[in-house]
Amino acid sequence: MRSTPEHRLSRRGLLAGGAVTAVGALAACAPDRAAPAAAPAARPVADGSAAEEFHGPHQAGVATLPQAHAVFLGLDLRPGTDREAVVRLMRLLTDDARRLTAGRPALADLETELAALPARLTVTFGFGPGLFTAVKADDLRPGSVAVLPSFKIDKLEEHWSGGDLLVQICADDGLALAHALRVIVKDARAFATVRWTQRGFRRSPHTQPAGMTQRNLMGQLDGTVNPRPGSPEFDKAVWVSEGPSWLRGGTTLVLRRIRMELETWDAVDRSGREFSVGRRLDDGAPLTGRAEHDEPDFGRTDPSGLPVISEFAHIRRARVPDPSMRMLRRPYNYDEGVNAEGKSDSGLLFASYQADIARQYIPVQRKLAELDLLNEWTTPIGSAVFAIPPGCGPTGWIGETLLG
Amino acid sequence: MRSTPEHRLSRRGLLAGGAVTAVGALAACAPDRAAPAAAPAARPVADGSAAEEFHGPHQAGVATLPQAHAVFLGLDLRPGTDREAVVRLMRLLTDDARRLTAGRPALADLETELAALPARLTVTFGFGPGLFTAVKADDLRPGSVAVLPSFKIDKLEEHWSGGDLLVQICADDGLALAHALRVIVKDARAFATVRWTQRGFRRSPHTQPAGMTQRNLMGQLDGTVNPRPGSPEFDKAVWVSEGPSWLRGGTTLVLRRIRMELETWDAVDRSGREFSVGRRLDDGAPLTGRAEHDEPDFGRTDPSGLPVISEFAHIRRARVPDPSMRMLRRPYNYDEGVNAEGKSDSGLLFASYQADIARQYIPVQRKLAELDLLNEWTTPIGSAVFAIPPGCGPTGWIGETLLG
Repeated sequence: MRSTPEHRLSRRGLLAGGAVTAVGALAACAPDRAAPAAAPAARPVADGSAAEEFHGPHQAGVATLPQAHAVFLGLDLRPGTDREAVVRLMRLLTDDARRLTAGRPALADLETELAALPARLTVTFGFGPGLFTAVKADDLRPGSVAVLPSFKIDKLEEHWSGGDLLVQICADDGLALAHALRVIVKDARAFATVRWTQRGFRRSPHTQPAGMTQRNLMGQLDGTVNPRPGSPEFDKAVWVSEGPSWLRGGTTLVLRRIRMELETWDAVDRSGREFSVGRRLDDGAPLTGRAEHDEPDFGRTDPSGLPVISEFAHIRRARVPDPSMRMLRRPYNYDEGVNAEGKSDSGLLFASYQADIARQYIPVQRKLAELDLLNEWTTPIGSAVFAIPPGCGPTGWIGETLLG
Repeated sequence: MRSTPEHRLSRRGLLAGGAVTAVGALAACAPDRAAPAAAPAARPVADGSAAEEFHGPHQAGVATLPQAHAVFLGLDLRPGTDREAVVRLMRLLTDDARRLTAGRPALADLETELAALPARLTVTFGFGPGLFTAVKADDLRPGSVAVLPSFKIDKLEEHWSGGDLLVQICADDGLALAHALRVIVKDARAFATVRWTQRGFRRSPHTQPAGMTQRNLMGQLDGTVNPRPGSPEFDKAVWVSEGPSWLRGGTTLVLRRIRMELETWDAVDRSGREFSVGRRLDDGAPLTGRAEHDEPDFGRTDPSGLPVISEFAHIRRARVPDPSMRMLRRPYNYDEGVNAEGKSDSGLLFASYQADIARQYIPVQRKLAELDLLNEWTTPIGSAVFAIPPGCGPTGWIGETLLG
């Protein structure tokens, strides 16, 4: 395998890693106030030859340091695609993913050279409710892998919602992503039709040091309270450890397409924006604190007796005190066409991974849908839910614990 | 200015540059046969804080090492937008570009933090035929900055063609690009409507070493015979040095949206693909040579007396023997939606910059349109032409040589 730890360290990474002492002296150049650059800059940064390990107890693409580009592909199984066909499909797509993520062409791949630089490509599979029905395994579907309850803020569009099979493809390079997408779509064609493709982007580890919180298109830091991969809280929050045994080591994904009303957001000044979120825009500190990761003081009031962090501020409504009950948010921005009058079609591909949608996602979403100042400028227009099976070994395939 | 040479060298770049001796030992890891990694890897690679100089005799975004992302924005001036209004518009947009490319927010920019990491952002302006009419300067329009003659391979779509004003925005980061686009569109809104936005991507200098030829979505190396920035041939080929004096130091852009018929391309085997292009797919060597940059031997015949490089092969048809008559190609891939049956909307944003469209672009395009085996799998669906004015100084604005 190319994806040994040695190979994952790129040339550039090795060089940077070997010169950590120089970083401190240069960190003062960092232009973003929210960017304490010293520590993260010492991490190796991958070049195009870097590969993420495909095999393991969990699928890659969840705990993986988020790549710059993503495409979420929603497929519908063709009528008559039964259990045996789904097994063939998953064996085929697993083989594609195993090869492509390691920088090797897929079988019968004619553009073999496009596979050579995977740029941390990951390919992650998820099963929607319809797949369980098709393979006659509805009894093995976790109850919350189902259409979400409707929230009053939703304006869901059918063509951005649902889907039997998810393929989430992420990479630090657009060409690697496009090639992988094309291979997967081609090999799935006999079994499934394309329901939607949703493309997104975020700052890559090349643009800002790994581990720094990302900004979304509204300019907000997004993901401050994420559980940290590798911590016990992360494992408990993200990986399934109870319920149907086939899903242990897996997770569940809620994918929401959230349109941002950037035109009206423009009419809000900075203090209005900070009031809505409950954090300062520049460094992401809670309005009661001094640094991004300070604990918000929800009890503090201003001289007039009103809470400093509003009852309706996003961080108060989204608050989950127990870290092991938080969801992992791994969102991507989207920015599609601009209409003649300059109105953009922009927003967030909100992607949250959690062990249990019913216990972790839905209560938070209920609170947000009820009252969250940000609802004024955000509209959910797509929604889909998938079980993300555990990973597999070098001779296995994704889905074998359910279908094998 | 932040864009001094010192600042352009990133932390990571400085580290890599200081450790050149380590590169040779590691170069053997390079997975792509066409990638002799040793020399280019020693070049500094920019992180998100890197800025491209906005000021100078030429606009940035032409000779600039191509960034990973691009959006080409085509604007139509609103009826009644006269010379005075165009001057106001160009002053305004120049100010935006000057600030954003240096990592500073635009005036009245509410998402100031999104400007902080420009990631080599460039903003390049171009004037289409309609702008000259609007400012009553048709006599100063170079003759070939006009609708191109129609080629028999064209299937042009109006909504991908034409435009009075081009804004080409490129960056190594999607968020920097999206923010700059939004600022520009917003500030242009009173003067112009959006005719089209065309988004593209290519491998960034992080994915493969700078200076290596790019592959397109058909898997071909694309741009082997480009003139080399900094060479006398480049200056002669790209920058205008005769004709209307206002355009000296500028150039002209032909932007063609070329759809790739990837479905039928899939039916062609590798030898068929190599025959069509006249180069080997793996390393880009001409079929008569051993390495990418070897001169093709168009006279060589095979034992049966047929030319080794076909009369209809792309490299023969596109051949321009005089380097100073070549155009600079700076193309981007596009990959939009996938339909239900898995057919992708993919292709190339062909962007060529040349001193003289009539002498450099049109003769080559005529030869290609007549007979080029690649025409079978490529269809021009959009076409636009712009004069790219020269650059400006710190107190100047783009277009001042025409409108000032």
